[in-house]
Amino acid sequence: MYGDRLARVRERMAGLGVDVLLLSTGADLPWLTGYEALETERLTMLVLPRDDDATLVVPRLEVARVHEQPAFSIAAWDETADPVELAARLAGAPTTAAIGDHTWARFLLDLQRALPRTSFRRASEVTGPLRMVKDRAEVDELRAAARAVDAIVREMRGRPFAGRTEADVHNELVERMLDAGHERANFAIVGSGPNGASPHHEASSRVIEPGDVVVCDFGGSMRHYCSDITRLFVAGEPTAEVLDTYAVLVDAQEQAVRAARVGTPGEEVDATARRIIGDAGFGDRFIHRTGHGIGVETHEEPYIVAGNRVPLEPGNAFSIEPGIYLPGRFGLRLEDIVVATPDGPERLNQAPRDLAVVE
Amino acid sequence: MYGDRLARVRERMAGLGVDVLLLSTGADLPWLTGYEALETERLTMLVLPRDDDATLVVPRLEVARVHEQPAFSIAAWDETADPVELAARLAGAPTTAAIGDHTWARFLLDLQRALPRTSFRRASEVTGPLRMVKDRAEVDELRAAARAVDAIVREMRGRPFAGRTEADVHNELVERMLDAGHERANFAIVGSGPNGASPHHEASSRVIEPGDVVVCDFGGSMRHYCSDITRLFVAGEPTAEVLDTYAVLVDAQEQAVRAARVGTPGEEVDATARRIIGDAGFGDRFIHRTGHGIGVETHEEPYIVAGNRVPLEPGNAFSIEPGIYLPGRFGLRLEDIVVATPDGPERLNQAPRDLAVVE
Repeated sequence: MYGDRLARVRERMAGLGVDVLLLSTGADLPWLTGYEALETERLTMLVLPRDDDATLVVPRLEVARVHEQPAFSIAAWDETADPVELAARLAGAPTTAAIGDHTWARFLLDLQRALPRTSFRRASEVTGPLRMVKDRAEVDELRAAARAVDAIVREMRGRPFAGRTEADVHNELVERMLDAGHERANFAIVGSGPNGASPHHEASSRVIEPGDVVVCDFGGSMRHYCSDITRLFVAGEPTAEVLDTYAVLVDAQEQAVRAARVGTPGEEVDATARRIIGDAGFGDRFIHRTGHGIGVETHEEPYIVAGNRVPLEPGNAFSIEPGIYLPGRFGLRLEDIVVATPDGPERLNQAPRDLAVVE
Repeated sequence: MYGDRLARVRERMAGLGVDVLLLSTGADLPWLTGYEALETERLTMLVLPRDDDATLVVPRLEVARVHEQPAFSIAAWDETADPVELAARLAGAPTTAAIGDHTWARFLLDLQRALPRTSFRRASEVTGPLRMVKDRAEVDELRAAARAVDAIVREMRGRPFAGRTEADVHNELVERMLDAGHERANFAIVGSGPNGASPHHEASSRVIEPGDVVVCDFGGSMRHYCSDITRLFVAGEPTAEVLDTYAVLVDAQEQAVRAARVGTPGEEVDATARRIIGDAGFGDRFIHRTGHGIGVETHEEPYIVAGNRVPLEPGNAFSIEPGIYLPGRFGLRLEDIVVATPDGPERLNQAPRDLAVVE
């Protein structure tokens, strides 16, 4: 698998005129090799010349983390050595280097100083179009991760919410993700009552009150592949207004999922959800794009957003997550991961989509 | 507090000839303003000109996360807008910009294209020397975080280890950190038996066996300030070899802590631990530096490492964590957070430092 990816990466490098690929923290490196760099001040960097063997520059104390790999040799550096100088030397004298999008700026600045005649561009120009198309094994991994969080949603439908802090529910979601086989919990948004109107609200010490709508949006990584789901819980009976507004959202999400067919551009899927929400009078309350691609990273290509004219391909995996946010009152969002297939869109998440009435 | 830090940052910018500071993800932004940027493809960036008011460029959907701040005004950008163009415009035409060390490379590349006549350097040149000296309130926060993980160590001394996977113990540590008031668990290394010889081992599916030494090194963030502690657990009675080797390590750690006095350079503290371990014949088994500074980031200045000749100052906070690693057999590490004070080094961690015999 990694050998095949490596070959396709080299092919794209040739097509784009990239002489060397430099990958550090971020998802490109584990996608290409299975090895994930620790995010620290100690540089880890795969130096992959287009026409030569790859080398992983890695701190000596982390060598034992690297499993034997046919894809690269290892250049370990000691605590007082200069890993940037080492990486630059291995890179040769490239005209064009592509550097991992998430590499820390301090390392890019150092590399630019060490390679003053090199032009740098984003590694995602090389890897993005490849990572965007998932093969069957990758879809299976995404499905397994989706099923794991589906089970958590089902469990949470039987749990009490009122009287607990958002932080307490957040911690439970994190713990359940780890217990469900995720090696990492990437995030767990818990927005109750008025806090739900902030799409990226950070779980706080606010105590959930009877009658609150609670937005739970959480995900993690399982064998490198990401989960991401949003469901709504109501502590007690929802009001007619919440029910009516949610019915609009459910319709928007359903129609957007149906629109996500091979050949349809991301912007059309986005427009589908936006039109339904707009027709119901909530157009200015839907303040974000409809979705994002997902894979070894929670957010990656393709984005389901105005301006994305690239037609969906078989194997594209992405979220469909429209939202309606009423500042000071409540927020609603519904999210599933969907894969575009020749037979139409497949939802990977199967947890119930109704408003869960909880204690 | 933030006003005072801002004034000192502007003073250093003037001294260094930095025209604008650009802060995104990473610890500088919360240290300077209390606001932490989400790490996503949607750019958040504080643009702080040396002689003008600061502006936070932030995605529209995250505006509600930003609490009212006297320190900056807000420039929200919509999903289809170009935040780099916005940040570059707010930066003016700087000769020299300092960019947050952890900013993603893709944003630096875009900024360099938008500001072709600007020279970029690391923001840590501005902020590092300021962040390195903790005031009393910051030491109190570090102490509270240390006490929280101390309590977890005490609890773990009564827990079973044998028969459980490393991943299971990892999950328990994460859960306990969250339950103990950390808003985030940053890492939890669980290295059992031979895996302990890999200092940055990732908790695996390996089942802990009777007789195993288990290295537990974990930490998180509590009200922005980091904890970080390493303790050793033995499933059953330790062998004489483990006890003897550990006695060397305890001595090395104790002497290094005592050496960490105001005025002593970091390299001398490192040399102290290294000499004791070397004298016992394990010099080549101590494969990392003795410690790292800690504050709003787990690893920051000052580093306790060969080559660091800067004398310790009152308010420097750092780990002292020598280790001895015997490949294929076991590893040992002992870590406390220490603050340099005019009255001598203060250990913030007080959990028992003996080998914990567990089931």
